Amino acid sequence: MRDVSIIGVGQTKVGEHWDRGLADLAVEATLAGLDDAGLDNADILYVGNMLGGVLSGQEHLGALIADLAGLRGMPALRVEAADASGGVALHQAYQAVAGGMVDTALVVGVEKMTDRLPQATEEGLMLAGLGDYEAAQGVTYVSQTAMLMQRYLHEHSLEVGDFAQFPVNAHRNAAANPFAMYRNQISEKAYRQAKMIASPINLLDGAPWADGAAAVVLVPTEQAQAMGRQGIRILASTLVTDALSLTERDDPLALAAARASAQRAYQQAGLTPGDIHLAELHDAFSILAALTLEACGFAARGQGVKLGQAGDIARAGRIPIATLGGFKARGNPVGASGVYQAVEIVQQLRGAAGQSQIPAARVGLAQNLGGNGATAVTHIFMN
Amino acid sequence: MRDVSIIGVGQTKVGEHWDRGLADLAVEATLAGLDDAGLDNADILYVGNMLGGVLSGQEHLGALIADLAGLRGMPALRVEAADASGGVALHQAYQAVAGGMVDTALVVGVEKMTDRLPQATEEGLMLAGLGDYEAAQGVTYVSQTAMLMQRYLHEHSLEVGDFAQFPVNAHRNAAANPFAMYRNQISEKAYRQAKMIASPINLLDGAPWADGAAAVVLVPTEQAQAMGRQGIRILASTLVTDALSLTERDDPLALAAARASAQRAYQQAGLTPGDIHLAELHDAFSILAALTLEACGFAARGQGVKLGQAGDIARAGRIPIATLGGFKARGNPVGASGVYQAVEIVQQLRGAAGQSQIPAARVGLAQNLGGNGATAVTHIFMN
Repeated sequence: MRDVSIIGVGQTKVGEHWDRGLADLAVEATLAGLDDAGLDNADILYVGNMLGGVLSGQEHLGALIADLAGLRGMPALRVEAADASGGVALHQAYQAVAGGMVDTALVVGVEKMTDRLPQATEEGLMLAGLGDYEAAQGVTYVSQTAMLMQRYLHEHSLEVGDFAQFPVNAHRNAAANPFAMYRNQISEKAYRQAKMIASPINLLDGAPWADGAAAVVLVPTEQAQAMGRQGIRILASTLVTDALSLTERDDPLALAAARASAQRAYQQAGLTPGDIHLAELHDAFSILAALTLEACGFAARGQGVKLGQAGDIARAGRIPIATLGGFKARGNPVGASGVYQAVEIVQQLRGAAGQSQIPAARVGLAQNLGGNGATAVTHIFMN
Repeated sequence: MRDVSIIGVGQTKVGEHWDRGLADLAVEATLAGLDDAGLDNADILYVGNMLGGVLSGQEHLGALIADLAGLRGMPALRVEAADASGGVALHQAYQAVAGGMVDTALVVGVEKMTDRLPQATEEGLMLAGLGDYEAAQGVTYVSQTAMLMQRYLHEHSLEVGDFAQFPVNAHRNAAANPFAMYRNQISEKAYRQAKMIASPINLLDGAPWADGAAAVVLVPTEQAQAMGRQGIRILASTLVTDALSLTERDDPLALAAARASAQRAYQQAGLTPGDIHLAELHDAFSILAALTLEACGFAARGQGVKLGQAGDIARAGRIPIATLGGFKARGNPVGASGVYQAVEIVQQLRGAAGQSQIPAARVGLAQNLGGNGATAVTHIFMN
């Protein structure tokens, strides 16, 4: 098994790109990633995307994006695992390079949601859940996550306001990220007064659905060194699944797949949670920030929310998260978000995160979930 | 790079499964494949599927099918490349085992189309084409293929009747295949009198859209031998892409990706077209049977149709195709068809194809296309 490094990253601004299509965004990120890597092609292209078919009337994104990026003919395919599509595409690319089947792998995550937001949120996102038994009953992705949060509040005798620091921290960190969707600051008071969306989830709990694309370029670490590039090594890449339906899980708050994926990643990397300098977690909702902090071993059960209250998740804290805004403030173009996480960790480990820089960051963890944890993919990176 | 073999295959009958859902079909094939391999699990599951999101309201098939098959937790993902989804899923599984990243890979291709046939044929299949420039203008998959056939008739001064042997041969070979959708025989006369669908394509030119699932299990050849299993070796697995739009291709009849994919497969296997004993090609339409015979090196340009007329494609001919019915008579559950091809070649190379058996078959080729050849994946198998 070969050691693998990321030598190039690219991204579009996350936001409402009404003037540009799904493929346009992917091509911009792809070319930026190749340019950053100093390459003009790759051996294979993995496209992470969830909703191109239902929202843009376009599947077959592998061949399409390869062609529009000027790389007609290259091996290319789309990988889908709901909102974990980007992270799983990266996992597949890692496997192809680590196994020696290709020498250069390009990954682009892309999503285009804002043209058709009602359809995206009401129908699109429930394609991640159990269609016949959940979506058919009217359950939406937000209402499902609200049930998780309600259960957490109940089990641990908390109130909604206890979650305030997750969005506050995310917005604070996004301020200096030119690619983030929301760079405004929000106060704890604003969070406490925010409109209820799906009780107990309020307007400032949820990440904004967005358009965007992000890309990374992987090569064997030896090749990166031979090219004289400062690669960021991938120490671990793990993929685990779980039941799609929350009701089928023994303990919905445990996020069993997220936990197993993190544990295997620590084992693969020979590290423990204490060795991680920053983490990009799946903070699509505040409750998921708390639950993934627990699943990744940064906090005991029910204590994830306390890391926010204690300032541990802040830039100077013990385990900084959402360091360039996270899902909440960078924005959540679902199938792309897992690749944005990798791009941002590379920025941090290169020391190129500007005013969002985590000082002396050497080891970063990214975890991307699909369908509230039915798919979980974890990566650990080191500079 | 490790030598890889298929040690298990499974399939559902292809047809109109109105009483069963997408996941039900996938689970049946998956469990049959594992059972045939003598295994009760695998290291990873690749799901090939094109239209689950738009037709069944269900994406995230990796985690879902793993769970419903009793394999909750296993690494699993969906691979999509339009109607080449099944073949590309197999290609990815091959790479994972050959590269040593996993020891047992499960591939299931699945599609459920007949519940919503008008939507499947008018909108669904054009998700494989260029949405903004083709589908938006009213081009359908069938009309696009009709343009290919018209051009072929024009360039080579042929008439529609010259294609008769492709469907006649396919139906003849399907007669003894219990999993085939159409086991009735058709005559050359019936073909010549068939209703025109999208001139020059008639009713008997096109494969029926269908429901179905097929699965294969891959392990390193050494492991197959250690288990005392008669594995079928995968000698080559290649993936190439092209422009989605026919108008963007220099020569639409050349099927450049299909040609390059086949050439690389021969190179990888150290074989030539003359070494192939049977081929499962992408005969979704008669014209594609002719064009892929040419792209795979079995006939010169414009001569593919002559292989049909001369009987070369028949069971006792020089290069038998559609040996268990092909797309035309076995049926075409699009994202599953690439895996059905592999299953059928394994049946032939095991000598287990019953009355459809090609005598002394030792080397088989399968080629699966997406979007009229914008994605092409070729496999060569040997017993």
